[in-house]
Amino acid sequence: MNNLYDDKNFFESYAQMARSKDGLKAAGEWHQLQLLFPPLREKSVLDLGCGYGWHCKYAAGQGAHSVLGLDQSSRMIEEARERNAAFNITYRVCGIDEYEYPENSFDLVVSNLVLHYVADLDPVFKKVFQTLKKDGIFLFNIEHPVFTAGINEDWIYHKDGTPKAWPVDNYFYPGERQTVFLGHHVSKQHHTMTQILMGVLNAGFTLEHIKEAQPPAEMMHIPGMKDEMRRPMMLLIRAKK
Amino acid sequence: MNNLYDDKNFFESYAQMARSKDGLKAAGEWHQLQLLFPPLREKSVLDLGCGYGWHCKYAAGQGAHSVLGLDQSSRMIEEARERNAAFNITYRVCGIDEYEYPENSFDLVVSNLVLHYVADLDPVFKKVFQTLKKDGIFLFNIEHPVFTAGINEDWIYHKDGTPKAWPVDNYFYPGERQTVFLGHHVSKQHHTMTQILMGVLNAGFTLEHIKEAQPPAEMMHIPGMKDEMRRPMMLLIRAKK
Repeated sequence: MNNLYDDKNFFESYAQMARSKDGLKAAGEWHQLQLLFPPLREKSVLDLGCGYGWHCKYAAGQGAHSVLGLDQSSRMIEEARERNAAFNITYRVCGIDEYEYPENSFDLVVSNLVLHYVADLDPVFKKVFQTLKKDGIFLFNIEHPVFTAGINEDWIYHKDGTPKAWPVDNYFYPGERQTVFLGHHVSKQHHTMTQILMGVLNAGFTLEHIKEAQPPAEMMHIPGMKDEMRRPMMLLIRAKK
Repeated sequence: MNNLYDDKNFFESYAQMARSKDGLKAAGEWHQLQLLFPPLREKSVLDLGCGYGWHCKYAAGQGAHSVLGLDQSSRMIEEARERNAAFNITYRVCGIDEYEYPENSFDLVVSNLVLHYVADLDPVFKKVFQTLKKDGIFLFNIEHPVFTAGINEDWIYHKDGTPKAWPVDNYFYPGERQTVFLGHHVSKQHHTMTQILMGVLNAGFTLEHIKEAQPPAEMMHIPGMKDEMRRPMMLLIRAKK
């Protein structure tokens, strides 16, 4: 993973995104992701790559006993502590690959839009399996393989500047992809659908939900949102230990 | 479903394909699909859309007690009876939507490259679940959503005629897609990954394997085969009742 999120300029651009300013309700996938959360009353929750802490706050609000939010960016953790603090949430600067994953400790592990920065998912899936209690839930949102297999993660355009199609290439060559996000060069990791889903199954999980994020009807008036119907951008997975 | 496979001209073109002439070993996905078959000794097998009967013959050769191959094309069934007959195989002209699906009757239901002609998969998944015995396996190969969401199921090309990228569009608008296959207009059905996988789960199955077909190393010398690494064409699913 890169530490782009500790870069001051990038961080300032990130802060201007609707989902940063307005949280979950501004995220096009939230209406689907929310439905995949298990009941959280008195449960323990781990958030891998918590960012501003919106999902931690949500879990706390659902009655979770304790929530641990990890992010390798100290700027993100500062922001989370300011915006989304609660007595039952602990925020900690810690990368996904550094955390100790204590055995049988959490009822829910959630990870939102972080795993596409991780080159090798299998060790993460195994560690999440280890740190979940029996019947625990792993809920994650990762950039969709169609999206990461896009050429520079961008459309090809008509002459008038409107999107013509989403170009997929080199699908079966997973690994690093260069793209531009918020005006900054960003390095992401392309994983095939097979790698993601078989990784989850091979770690020992049962697949419960596989949902491609689609924007809700009430967001269709937002500029560019209709194009989100033309190719999948995010993949939501719920798996059970 | 259309009855294109009963069209004489189309049928003659189909007969010239490597996989028609040489059977399973000429099919780029067979090296992966074969591994997903359960042990078949003394088992009962149903093949939905059996075509020339290659998979029926394979199942019979694996020691299956009985194999029922269905295809709505009478030409296909004639061909199957000629090429792939065996004492324990029954071939029958019957569409996937016409079959009676007797309860708890089969140990394996297999379906190869047929379900992308079916508009509504959910009833098929439910009937397959019904006709399988407890712990029975449903193994199918369907055109991949990236493939069916391709514009006319074709590449966009460089000026020199080589493929530039695979254009995806209208992904979240499932339904009919027009394409050209073997010089004939063919109507197929695009399903999203969500529809396929959630359809299987909602029918009551457990997902055991989700594998995108990739050509094997030893076929890479075949013209055009390297391009098969650039976008996924087929999706192999193994699910358990």
